[in-house]
Amino acid sequence: MVGGGEGAFIGSVHRMAARLDGHWDLVAGAFQSDPAKSVAFGRSLGIEESRAYPDFRTMATREAGRQDRIDAVAIVTPNAAHHPAARVFLDAGIAVICDKPMTISRDEADDLAQAVSRTGLPFILTHNYSGYPMIRQARAMVEAGELGAIRIVQAEYAQDWLATELPGNKQADWRGDPARAGPGGALGDIATHAFQLAEFVTGLKAQSLAADLSSFVAGRKVDDNVNVLLRLGDARGMLWASQVATGSVNGLKLRVFGDKGGIEWAQETPETLLFTPLGGQQRIIRRGGAGVSASATQATRVPGGHPEGYLEGFAQIYSDAAELVRAYQEKRAPQTFAKLAPGVEDGVRGVQFITAAIASSRNNGAWIALD
Amino acid sequence: MVGGGEGAFIGSVHRMAARLDGHWDLVAGAFQSDPAKSVAFGRSLGIEESRAYPDFRTMATREAGRQDRIDAVAIVTPNAAHHPAARVFLDAGIAVICDKPMTISRDEADDLAQAVSRTGLPFILTHNYSGYPMIRQARAMVEAGELGAIRIVQAEYAQDWLATELPGNKQADWRGDPARAGPGGALGDIATHAFQLAEFVTGLKAQSLAADLSSFVAGRKVDDNVNVLLRLGDARGMLWASQVATGSVNGLKLRVFGDKGGIEWAQETPETLLFTPLGGQQRIIRRGGAGVSASATQATRVPGGHPEGYLEGFAQIYSDAAELVRAYQEKRAPQTFAKLAPGVEDGVRGVQFITAAIASSRNNGAWIALD
Amino acid sequence: MVGGGEGAFIGSVHRMAARLDGHWDLVAGAFQSDPAKSVAFGRSLGIEESRAYPDFRTMATREAGRQDRIDAVAIVTPNAAHHPAARVFLDAGIAVICDKPMTISRDEADDLAQAVSRTGLPFILTHNYSGYPMIRQARAMVEAGELGAIRIVQAEYAQDWLATELPGNKQADWRGDPARAGPGGALGDIATHAFQLAEFVTGLKAQSLAADLSSFVAGRKVDDNVNVLLRLGDARGMLWASQVATGSVNGLKLRVFGDKGGIEWAQETPETLLFTPLGGQQRIIRRGGAGVSASATQATRVPGGHPEGYLEGFAQIYSDAAELVRAYQEKRAPQTFAKLAPGVEDGVRGVQFITAAIASSRNNGAWIALD
Amino acid sequence: MVGGGEGAFIGSVHRMAARLDGHWDLVAGAFQSDPAKSVAFGRSLGIEESRAYPDFRTMATREAGRQDRIDAVAIVTPNAAHHPAARVFLDAGIAVICDKPMTISRDEADDLAQAVSRTGLPFILTHNYSGYPMIRQARAMVEAGELGAIRIVQAEYAQDWLATELPGNKQADWRGDPARAGPGGALGDIATHAFQLAEFVTGLKAQSLAADLSSFVAGRKVDDNVNVLLRLGDARGMLWASQVATGSVNGLKLRVFGDKGGIEWAQETPETLLFTPLGGQQRIIRRGGAGVSASATQATRVPGGHPEGYLEGFAQIYSDAAELVRAYQEKRAPQTFAKLAPGVEDGVRGVQFITAAIASSRNNGAWIALD
Repeated sequence: MVGGGEGAFIGSVHRMAARLDGHWDLVAGAFQSDPAKSVAFGRSLGIEESRAYPDFRTMATREAGRQDRIDAVAIVTPNAAHHPAARVFLDAGIAVICDKPMTISRDEADDLAQAVSRTGLPFILTHNYSGYPMIRQARAMVEAGELGAIRIVQAEYAQDWLATELPGNKQADWRGDPARAGPGGALGDIATHAFQLAEFVTGLKAQSLAADLSSFVAGRKVDDNVNVLLRLGDARGMLWASQVATGSVNGLKLRVFGDKGGIEWAQETPETLLFTPLGGQQRIIRRGGAGVSASATQATRVPGGHPEGYLEGFAQIYSDAAELVRAYQEKRAPQTFAKLAPGVEDGVRGVQFITAAIASSRNNGAWIALD
Repeated sequence: MVGGGEGAFIGSVHRMAARLDGHWDLVAGAFQSDPAKSVAFGRSLGIEESRAYPDFRTMATREAGRQDRIDAVAIVTPNAAHHPAARVFLDAGIAVICDKPMTISRDEADDLAQAVSRTGLPFILTHNYSGYPMIRQARAMVEAGELGAIRIVQAEYAQDWLATELPGNKQADWRGDPARAGPGGALGDIATHAFQLAEFVTGLKAQSLAADLSSFVAGRKVDDNVNVLLRLGDARGMLWASQVATGSVNGLKLRVFGDKGGIEWAQETPETLLFTPLGGQQRIIRRGGAGVSASATQATRVPGGHPEGYLEGFAQIYSDAAELVRAYQEKRAPQTFAKLAPGVEDGVRGVQFITAAIASSRNNGAWIALD
Repeated sequence: MVGGGEGAFIGSVHRMAARLDGHWDLVAGAFQSDPAKSVAFGRSLGIEESRAYPDFRTMATREAGRQDRIDAVAIVTPNAAHHPAARVFLDAGIAVICDKPMTISRDEADDLAQAVSRTGLPFILTHNYSGYPMIRQARAMVEAGELGAIRIVQAEYAQDWLATELPGNKQADWRGDPARAGPGGALGDIATHAFQLAEFVTGLKAQSLAADLSSFVAGRKVDDNVNVLLRLGDARGMLWASQVATGSVNGLKLRVFGDKGGIEWAQETPETLLFTPLGGQQRIIRRGGAGVSASATQATRVPGGHPEGYLEGFAQIYSDAAELVRAYQEKRAPQTFAKLAPGVEDGVRGVQFITAAIASSRNNGAWIALD
Repeated sequence: MVGGGEGAFIGSVHRMAARLDGHWDLVAGAFQSDPAKSVAFGRSLGIEESRAYPDFRTMATREAGRQDRIDAVAIVTPNAAHHPAARVFLDAGIAVICDKPMTISRDEADDLAQAVSRTGLPFILTHNYSGYPMIRQARAMVEAGELGAIRIVQAEYAQDWLATELPGNKQADWRGDPARAGPGGALGDIATHAFQLAEFVTGLKAQSLAADLSSFVAGRKVDDNVNVLLRLGDARGMLWASQVATGSVNGLKLRVFGDKGGIEWAQETPETLLFTPLGGQQRIIRRGGAGVSASATQATRVPGGHPEGYLEGFAQIYSDAAELVRAYQEKRAPQTFAKLAPGVEDGVRGVQFITAAIASSRNNGAWIALD
């Protein structure tokens, strides 16, 4: 693991998610930018001394040289360090599991895409919400034509934890600093999740967008509210992301309407998917319940009614990653389910989305192509 | 009553709403464009023969000449007839209760505004959703500063009854015919409700909008899906209206977020309002329950937990109208509650909204001012 | 109308409900026990002087003698007056619409049943919740065998308005006084509703019950919490009613499970019925939506998504009553829908239920037959 | 681990739950009654050969003799084996984590209680639902007096997976066999959870109960529907458990009402707790949100809005257990939070509950004391 030291939120999430399904052990890491703290933190996690590294370059070099080298590295640093770290490990021949947004610029994104293509190494981007069984169910239903031709996509991701200044909050600090987070605020942190989910479920690609970005809290250097119109082929969409929507906690929500049916899913109640066939009764499709797709069943641990949640969805990405890495090592095709894991192309799309939204907002909401 | 004959939906709604609180009796009407049918329908409602009129002009003339003339006329025709009918009754000195959208052009809207101003007569526009107690509660809370400065407004109104062509459906027919409905489809029929509600609750006025209108069903002459970005002073908003969102029934929903709190209300569960003060616990404010404003209490008929719904909200507008008309007749100021009834200015705003949205959509989503 | 004067809750509900569908006009009444107040209150409602009566006996006698006599009387007094008033009007040949519980003793209940049988007059008991469309849908589904053989019935009715003493509250006063309310508190006021609904929907009759009644508020003379076990043929049931369940407003809820399916309905969200066929997906059946029974459609006023509520359900009983009275007057069989109106047998069942529950509770929860 | 071999449900749950928080490694086990299969299964889990035991007695003896012996054993067999296995490990001086119901007879329960008392060893009973943060929040609120004196307890646990016979289903087989499951069906499997939760949250002890047990599916040897009335000091309660309630998945629900407030919690939406203070607005208390108790915060892994669920609640019991065992080993008092873990007394209570319910049902619902 690179990043995820003292006080980090997402590092411990990655560690629990990796552990849950029993596919991964944490054996090496460079956890903080301060070399001494990095080593100390690694040892506090029970990592053996020689593999608690002072920095990620040392880690990549040394691990690459070991017989029992790591199967993959998880990069969970602030965004600006994603590219350099990922590049170093890919170049060292090590598979990468990287947090999102993938990079802070389009050039970096393209560079990683080329490195992945060149090396053939597994690269997994932790758009963790696509690991939820009912999201995979939704995707399977769209694929099977149960919604017909998609007309409307409504995506939103509303939080409120940045509704005021949070001086001294480590999470808020780096996310509000363009040097570490990149040019997007809510845009990179959460809108990319909603965007990825919309494309993942519908199988559509947005061609262009029009955006109106705001920064409501005084002194904030990045956006904290994101209003976007989308055009996805013949379909039309809206995407709203906010970190100042008081009363919203982690309100990621997706609604998709086609000419044969519509679906609705909300991350805070992830176990069910609402489905209405045209002219029919609304149905509550439940994880582990009747009529559930193979892909959703595969992503399931415990019976329906025993709620799975955020960590289980996140763990699914780690299970997908385990299979992708194992297949790579065994020089075979991975099992179908693992191909659902988000990869470097999702990373490029996310950066295209961020870039286009900023360009549109600076041009008073002009439609900008994503390419 | 003008309009609301055989097969009309909204005519019978107006009649039930008018009856519920006991303030109105239906004593005269011109219900259909066919004079003979109009008279016959009036008599089927139990209206006395001499007041079941063949057309609205005859009705206005004759009623104006009666000692026991009607206190007000309710105009519930397709949109194109709103202006001519309303104008005739205003000119005859009779108060008007008019369905929305008020008119099918900006000129007509201005003309009615001038006629109302000139005559001083009560003019009530049945944006019925603003009659819901919890909407009045929301408005009172914004006014009292409980939300602080408004930052974000999210309004939506999703239906699905027009997801396919409905040949021979009387309601769908006129709504899809620009000559009778005006230039907007979902825009005039439902987006105006969402827009009025957003301005009613927040007290803000939208200065400009950017719109992307679609018509998904083949052969449809008006829009059936409406994506709009809004700027309301320092606040930002999104408004989505659709009549092809399969699985949505009558999904009018409003969310407002300020720097001190946020609220959420949905028309299909109108009895409660969710409120979250910044940093506090979310609260379910309930009609008839603790901490409810005077305006919401006034709009209440039965104790909380005994659900009031659409007809009760609609009836509230009729009760407001009764007080406005009575006050006019008694040459006194109306009671406070009745001033909440939507009027001719709401009608002008609605037409401005429709006009701007169509202009923006034709200009590839350019920001257009509402004025 | 008899009862429903100054400060009464249910009187104004009956008046709105009677008015809503346009079948009834209020033309006569004896509203309060004080003769002068009764007359004054009647006139304040716009009733003509000669028909604002000082007491119900005078009203029965005089109305019986009029050419244009009332079609029916609505009895909305405290419970103890139901029997004498109903008896007087039945004897005068006037149809009766009576509030529940029907009487305060088993003898009175039997006496009314005999009077109804003897006179052949329509007698409607306002178990208003059986007027809800989705309750009629539930009954139709059970009848059609969609739930299979019924195994389990879970009924509850939880309120909290009596969680403390309410000195000076007119509604609380008479309900807490056995002389006016009868021997049951929550038992008569609300548990009878839950019991009637359970039998109405399932078509089953409870043979016996075991009860544990409590009175939690100091000084209260009647029960305020009711725990009951039921045996209904092979089915088993539980019924809970409380007026001290803090946080519950008007929580009437019914769940029925058979060997082929289960349903769930809650009065505070009356527009939908949850249905799960054995082994299938859960479905949200919606008033006005797909797959709804003829009986539910008949009980509907406005399209789905435009919430109907308490007053509409109550109005349905008045519409049923109108048809029953009209059919009686026209000496023809009533239309099918009207036969769903609760009648004198429901009244007898309710009193049997109250009587048995009190007997069981006094016998430390022994099983007592309802007969 | 003892039990939890091929095809077991709860074994893999225990393993994931133990792993999640990183306190436990699975290093030894006797997983199935067939010695060869037991060893093979252990090795398939990656357990070293010498510690994949053929049976639990061998395991207890050998582990007790090792320097690096296990810190605790998890017993996850069918109920009938709980007592012999637990007794053997306690006698060997090894701490026990045991599934519920603790034993299949009162004598066995008392025997284990004595063994625990005699040895002083940690004994944790996996009533996993008491590990949910919002359940600990509820308990803290009752303890702090926020509900006042408790009046009413409504507990239920409804499932439907046994609504029909399931020939060949391993889970259904042993649960329906009194020799392996003990005398209770739904009673032991799920009603005990609801009962434990009710006592855990309220701090009350039920003195007596009256029960009506049913077995709806033909040929079933144990109950599948449980209706119980409870007396808990001055409070009154109802408990319903069913495994044939079609449409119910894992519907464990608890409602508690006191003279100052009421709460409501449902296992399928475990992240929120509804709280209504007397006369106040209803509040949604959210894991990780405002006003949450120290005990609930301690039981939390990720921020609110990132759903935790069944495995996290279960993991909490394993984290509690880790602290109890560590404290025992270090001869110190455990931290406060760990004392919330259910123990041998909960096990005795559960068996008392089962025993009394069966006795009451056989005596036509007579009130039976729990002692």
